[in-house]
Amino acid sequence: MGMKIVGKGVQRLDAVAKVTGRARYSEDFFERDMLVGKVLRSPHAHAKVLRVDASRARALPGVEAVLVPGDPSWRPFGTAGHPWSLDPHHRDAQDRQILTDKARFVGDAVAAVVAVDLLTAQKALGLIDVEYEVLPFVLTPEEAMAEGAPLIHEGRDRNVLSDFGVGFGDLEAEFAKADRVFEGHFETSVVQHCHIENHNAFAFVDTDGRIVINSSTQIPHIVRRVVAQALDLPWGRVQVIKPFIGGGFGAKQDVVVEPLVAAMTLAVGGRPVRYALTREEVFIDSRTRHAFKMDLRTAVSKNGELKAIGIRLLSNSGAYASHGHSIAMAGGGNFRSLYKLDAVKFEPRTVTTNLPVAGAMRGYGSPQVFFALESHLEDIARALRLDPTELRLKNLIGVGYTDPLTGITVRSMGVPECIEKGKALIRWDEKRKANAQQTGDLRRGVGMACFSYASGTFPFSQEISGARVVMNQDGSITLQVGATEIGQGSDTAFAQMAAEILGIRFDMVHVVSSQDTDVTPFDPGSYASRQTSICGVAVRKAALEARDRVLAIASRKCGLDPAELDIQDCLIVEKALGREICTLEEVAMDSYYDRLHADPIRADVSANVRNSAIAYGATFVEVEVDLLTGKVEVLELYNIHDSGRIINPKLAEGQVHGGVSMALGAALLEQLLVDPATGRTLNNNLLDYKLPTILDTPKINAAFVETCDAGGSFGAKALGECPVISPGPAIRNAVLDATGVAFDKLPLYPQAVFEKFREAGVLGAEALAR
Amino acid sequence: MGMKIVGKGVQRLDAVAKVTGRARYSEDFFERDMLVGKVLRSPHAHAKVLRVDASRARALPGVEAVLVPGDPSWRPFGTAGHPWSLDPHHRDAQDRQILTDKARFVGDAVAAVVAVDLLTAQKALGLIDVEYEVLPFVLTPEEAMAEGAPLIHEGRDRNVLSDFGVGFGDLEAEFAKADRVFEGHFETSVVQHCHIENHNAFAFVDTDGRIVINSSTQIPHIVRRVVAQALDLPWGRVQVIKPFIGGGFGAKQDVVVEPLVAAMTLAVGGRPVRYALTREEVFIDSRTRHAFKMDLRTAVSKNGELKAIGIRLLSNSGAYASHGHSIAMAGGGNFRSLYKLDAVKFEPRTVTTNLPVAGAMRGYGSPQVFFALESHLEDIARALRLDPTELRLKNLIGVGYTDPLTGITVRSMGVPECIEKGKALIRWDEKRKANAQQTGDLRRGVGMACFSYASGTFPFSQEISGARVVMNQDGSITLQVGATEIGQGSDTAFAQMAAEILGIRFDMVHVVSSQDTDVTPFDPGSYASRQTSICGVAVRKAALEARDRVLAIASRKCGLDPAELDIQDCLIVEKALGREICTLEEVAMDSYYDRLHADPIRADVSANVRNSAIAYGATFVEVEVDLLTGKVEVLELYNIHDSGRIINPKLAEGQVHGGVSMALGAALLEQLLVDPATGRTLNNNLLDYKLPTILDTPKINAAFVETCDAGGSFGAKALGECPVISPGPAIRNAVLDATGVAFDKLPLYPQAVFEKFREAGVLGAEALAR
Repeated sequence: MGMKIVGKGVQRLDAVAKVTGRARYSEDFFERDMLVGKVLRSPHAHAKVLRVDASRARALPGVEAVLVPGDPSWRPFGTAGHPWSLDPHHRDAQDRQILTDKARFVGDAVAAVVAVDLLTAQKALGLIDVEYEVLPFVLTPEEAMAEGAPLIHEGRDRNVLSDFGVGFGDLEAEFAKADRVFEGHFETSVVQHCHIENHNAFAFVDTDGRIVINSSTQIPHIVRRVVAQALDLPWGRVQVIKPFIGGGFGAKQDVVVEPLVAAMTLAVGGRPVRYALTREEVFIDSRTRHAFKMDLRTAVSKNGELKAIGIRLLSNSGAYASHGHSIAMAGGGNFRSLYKLDAVKFEPRTVTTNLPVAGAMRGYGSPQVFFALESHLEDIARALRLDPTELRLKNLIGVGYTDPLTGITVRSMGVPECIEKGKALIRWDEKRKANAQQTGDLRRGVGMACFSYASGTFPFSQEISGARVVMNQDGSITLQVGATEIGQGSDTAFAQMAAEILGIRFDMVHVVSSQDTDVTPFDPGSYASRQTSICGVAVRKAALEARDRVLAIASRKCGLDPAELDIQDCLIVEKALGREICTLEEVAMDSYYDRLHADPIRADVSANVRNSAIAYGATFVEVEVDLLTGKVEVLELYNIHDSGRIINPKLAEGQVHGGVSMALGAALLEQLLVDPATGRTLNNNLLDYKLPTILDTPKINAAFVETCDAGGSFGAKALGECPVISPGPAIRNAVLDATGVAFDKLPLYPQAVFEKFREAGVLGAEALAR
Repeated sequence: MGMKIVGKGVQRLDAVAKVTGRARYSEDFFERDMLVGKVLRSPHAHAKVLRVDASRARALPGVEAVLVPGDPSWRPFGTAGHPWSLDPHHRDAQDRQILTDKARFVGDAVAAVVAVDLLTAQKALGLIDVEYEVLPFVLTPEEAMAEGAPLIHEGRDRNVLSDFGVGFGDLEAEFAKADRVFEGHFETSVVQHCHIENHNAFAFVDTDGRIVINSSTQIPHIVRRVVAQALDLPWGRVQVIKPFIGGGFGAKQDVVVEPLVAAMTLAVGGRPVRYALTREEVFIDSRTRHAFKMDLRTAVSKNGELKAIGIRLLSNSGAYASHGHSIAMAGGGNFRSLYKLDAVKFEPRTVTTNLPVAGAMRGYGSPQVFFALESHLEDIARALRLDPTELRLKNLIGVGYTDPLTGITVRSMGVPECIEKGKALIRWDEKRKANAQQTGDLRRGVGMACFSYASGTFPFSQEISGARVVMNQDGSITLQVGATEIGQGSDTAFAQMAAEILGIRFDMVHVVSSQDTDVTPFDPGSYASRQTSICGVAVRKAALEARDRVLAIASRKCGLDPAELDIQDCLIVEKALGREICTLEEVAMDSYYDRLHADPIRADVSANVRNSAIAYGATFVEVEVDLLTGKVEVLELYNIHDSGRIINPKLAEGQVHGGVSMALGAALLEQLLVDPATGRTLNNNLLDYKLPTILDTPKINAAFVETCDAGGSFGAKALGECPVISPGPAIRNAVLDATGVAFDKLPLYPQAVFEKFREAGVLGAEALAR
């Protein structure tokens, strides 16, 4: 059936609101008489809080409350935005307290002030006297695992959060019989999400004693649960509202500010308290991307068939668990849906250190693992003298492949087409030939990398989503979705789906963009690229249910069986004859006002999606490397995606632009720098942290290979996170193509590149003399 | 089955919020940068607007827009808060424009200003030049119907809005054969609702171009429809939100300020505009209670059996239709469910005049008609030398009676018990005996009156209601109701019903008290005493549906049939053994997190109630009348109600206190005074308008005769409006008992009483000499 609205690049619903400033974010709801909360943070990377004396702060006029560690009503809690599990073994580590009596990183919250204004609050922080017992600290997994390392969390027997791994096949047997075995070591750095809107929230106690929190979060229903757990309240006593939010990227898939702001309002009798992190605070006390260190070992046949892969991985989790081991696990799981292998052994280890806390970030471990894997495969291809694309094509799994560990079956797979398209776009063969002839200080190279990425979290977590449709008297609908719009454009995609099914114009769908746990259908939130494909299932189900009710009423009016009827362009038509029966508006009016049958058309559905559609794609890139300065410039970049059916090409392209831009930062510039002597973050601001600006960003080209996957709504698959995965290794491989130097660590910033070139003897003049 | 929560006087949900000031009303959401709307009102009772020159006003700095009559996008609309009807003959007169080009009463809105602040807006009003053609005006129905009277609405052929009447039996035949025929003439005055919170609203255009209105209204879904009609928009393009409201009493069952505030925001590009009426404006341009003039003629057998009643009625509707003829019709319909009659002829006539607009007000015509009828019956009882209670008891209809005109069957009827209780409470026989012996200037008397009152509006209008229940993970629920809490306590009653059905504690029900047409289940709103009995049906249905889902999950867990299970005190129990199966919380958690079956427990229901339970009651009162001053003091008052099952005795008592207090004002003090020379209202403020204060109010006693009516939820019947009906005639009858003077007009304020006493020759010394 031809689609009228799905597949069209309609303008996003909030476009005008956002460019005109009419969109209201959490801070826009701050009111002038709200109290202000601020936090006192540890200057030590590891220290016991022996005593907090708040008497001077409490005596300061304008200070309404000072909160200190040890409130007996507080409970340890986990911050990860994961769905709750009925299985206690499947829950996140509950290792946080609202305020801590032991600082585990520089910036850990040890006290908080609620005051009438920001200046008073800040002044009061300076009047809180904390006595610390300073402890030795560790910043790397190796230090943390060393004999005699200080134990960061009491009650655990080591600083390893988990070393649970997975695998199948007989790895060692495969290596024993392999033609060739390759090894590689790769590392990534700590990076930050840098969403424009910092974490912020306000809270108050509502008229019936419940805590209401308005927060910039991706996961309102999970925030509700975690706040209740942290404060030991029944979950129903907390209400969370999510207004427009200015980016999340995973850092708001964690419960960062809400338990504390809830505790703050309770400390002042329920009066409204606002609590907004500064950019500096976001850098150190929200979440970062885990730095991974990875050792890969691969068995390959002489003609380039991959046989077995073993990956050992160290994930630096920072001071608290947050998403914990699941990021390493997820990052190390996706490639199994890309390459055919007889044996896989994945041995990850997530280690607690005294760094700022790592958590979810767009790609969720995959950018790191695919950096290693796709760099490693490049090295293998070069060793075997295979074109890199040929090596990939040779080893792809096919449609129908079922992962032996997850049971997920691949139902669509467009990588060959992505590669074909990417090669054509960048003129792969032509450029590779030309690059072989280069001389001079500026060297060009092309590189590519592939990835696979699961939609949603099934079977690791529950994938439930909710939607509610109410048809108004004019035939337009109001659509409530549990899934959260966080800038990715999901509301628009949902509206397209609902309009398509209900035969109405796109502008007849009003999406309630703000989630409110009181009235929004249940859904864990926005993460894991689950919105369009997973939450779309609920939207589709609700729209179909509403459509059934429309047709039932129309059938009552005209006597024809509902199966003979359809809704087209706001008209009820007899399908066989294409004849108009009545208007949709007439049906809607009947549903409200028929004396006998009035029963407004609506659907309030929940979908428990027990499936995952695998998305794919590849990056093709050309770089120019300055052998004298180490500067890597991206000349051309194509991200080609198989994300199933593209619901909205314009928004899909936007996702690719954003994701690639983030990947470029991580590949070339960004890393959070920590002083090894103190554990203090050195570049906790947007001046010193080298986020690429638009001047640093090349033209980013997006292309799509449209498959239609039976696993997602309307055939859609994951897209939001995908673009961030393969640019890093593609750039690294292009640099290798340009210079012959195989980098093993991101970012490829000039200083690191320069040093490596010097080491490799390709620096400037030496290179010319080669 | 014994009830645990229904029937208990639990504290109202919003009690603390209201006394602590935490409850937020529409004006509490006004923001500092909102523009301010003000209206220019006609100084003439009847005048054509020839020309509006707004150029000087528009030139005033700070004026953002001036609205004048005749915007081509505006459409005539009706303001009545009635459900829409698919039958065009069953719709309200659409006789209003957002701004009028013909003023029909002093205060009619002819222009409006939107400015940066109130002072600027007020100043701008003075700069608008309006040229009027002043027309003759009429203030009474008689003037309006007179030959040559000025026609108030062009396009009509007379000033009579309707004279549609009803009846059954052969009235004239009954009169011809009657033993006795009695006649009486009675009048009531224009009174005002005097809700504490004036009408106010704010509006803006939302991020997707829809108009959002936050208003102090009883009827958000109807406001949505009317605003769309007035602005000629698809209904789905308007969203209406109702926060806490400070009283309505029917004046907010009309669309008073919303179309204009919507037009205001459209005039300024969608920026937020607030528009609040002053008290003076509420008095003249919201709604009043219709003054009725009634002629009654009654055929009676010599032993006091009523045979036939003919009522002719003139209703003064003021300048616009508003609720129109339906108030006279409703007022003249209720008594048919009280007294057995062989013939009834009701001939009402609703007449347009140049007074402020009359509309819905608590009791909806019944206080006026029962004042006439119950006074008239008193006169008949005296003439027949029957005890007034005996006359009533002799003529009551019985359970099973079906009204021949509406088809409504009486399923419960507690008037005999009400009368018995009332007589005992006031010591009726004892006092009547004692009163007969009185001398002196202060004379005491007892009086009584009965009433009947339908719950809701069926069969005249549709009675649809909606409710949504979502069970949280802890077993608590969120309850959304379409019905609006306007102070009557309905949210609390609904919470009791839901808690009762779901076996949870009262504090585990969170009612979303604010209605939002985007997400609130459809329901026309709060009026006609429909909440507890009619909307309760939807709440009950939703709770039962949720209960079914709870038991289905519990059945899946334990293997027993759901019919064998019950929820008691948050536990699932096996009914037969009284044994605990599991906790409700476990079931709720399963509904969210079961890997296979997750599907949160919820119900989104609509109930189309095609029934009306008839409520009854009586007032017994003792007064002391000062023959020298005309002052009537109420010494004791008992309102005894048969409102079916009382869901919450404390709140029911509160309703009676409020309603009786309103009735006392209308009986003894209140009337809106209009200057006959100009049509101008003379006492449009709370200083000059004599609303009783607490010092004027005697102790009000409420008592209940609990029946259980199959027609309402949990056996409840109407209560909200009932208390306002019978105190007026009871007081009039008590004054008659005290003084022998039969008053025929309310209020019985000292000047009127004094004059009537002088006329009757019972004044002071003369009386003593009697």
